[in-house]
Amino acid sequence: MAGRARVFIATSVDGFIAGPNDEIDWLTADGAEDTFTPFFADVGALLMGRATYEVAAGFEGEWPYGDKPVLVATHRELEPKVSSVRAVQGGPEELLAQAKEAAGGRDVYVDGGKLIRSCLDAGLIDEITISIIPIILGAGIPLFAGTEQRHAVELVGARPIGGNLLEMTYRPKRGS
Amino acid sequence: MAGRARVFIATSVDGFIAGPNDEIDWLTADGAEDTFTPFFADVGALLMGRATYEVAAGFEGEWPYGDKPVLVATHRELEPKVSSVRAVQGGPEELLAQAKEAAGGRDVYVDGGKLIRSCLDAGLIDEITISIIPIILGAGIPLFAGTEQRHAVELVGARPIGGNLLEMTYRPKRGS
Repeated sequence: MAGRARVFIATSVDGFIAGPNDEIDWLTADGAEDTFTPFFADVGALLMGRATYEVAAGFEGEWPYGDKPVLVATHRELEPKVSSVRAVQGGPEELLAQAKEAAGGRDVYVDGGKLIRSCLDAGLIDEITISIIPIILGAGIPLFAGTEQRHAVELVGARPIGGNLLEMTYRPKRGS
Repeated sequence: MAGRARVFIATSVDGFIAGPNDEIDWLTADGAEDTFTPFFADVGALLMGRATYEVAAGFEGEWPYGDKPVLVATHRELEPKVSSVRAVQGGPEELLAQAKEAAGGRDVYVDGGKLIRSCLDAGLIDEITISIIPIILGAGIPLFAGTEQRHAVELVGARPIGGNLLEMTYRPKRGS
């Protein structure tokens, strides 16, 4: 099934995507690349929020997304770091429609807390893959923080990776 | 390995043990009993916080823990609902020592948010089993809320149960 809107995100065992002060130093685990690489191979385009883009643009070293189109949802002026980046505007439906066109039938990787939340609430996310890093943080920024409603999901699969990382995949149930 | 201090708890996909107003109506899933029954068979005694005891004591119908000793960590007067219940006092080490004695070499089931947290921070928890209910809540009471430090853990196992529930088991690493 191609052309899916997918979320791929890592959390602590207790469900945080960052520490209380945005710490992400714990976001490493043996096997993390083994789970990202096959996911990313199916991605045709990325749709991300502005804050997430700024984090990626701030990385030293190589641009992490190759030459895949990166659509950044933003109303502010954007000076793209690489030529594959462009700004997009609109509600969740319009944003995803543009990203799907850019993906050319392959998957769209939706990234960024607020954007994921609004796409989830609009019923537009097809699949969510969560990699659980083997650490208890105790406090931090919760996954899907502030989603406006509950969403029933279906477990598609779960597998340990590299011995200590757990990858689980869910599909939101339609109409939930 | 008998005589372990074990945590057995259910969370939403996004790591909440209850909704923002303590809602637990979503805490049901096919297969939930299949995972609790074998766990509970190895339990010799329960050690729980006062708030958790009050919830259990308030359930209508049969007392859920059979005749297994239930030690309630509380400084306030306690009128036990059944004869297997008694009040205990002390720091985490003392509480667990009493519970292990009551368990007679079998496992101690440690329950209740604050008590789990203090035992975890004291390095006294041997194993944590988390059953992930297939729902995204978006907001609520986080698992291990307020734990004072980070804890590295080791993935012991993960298995889908009843098709849609995911049970994962971790061991805190010593000295972390």
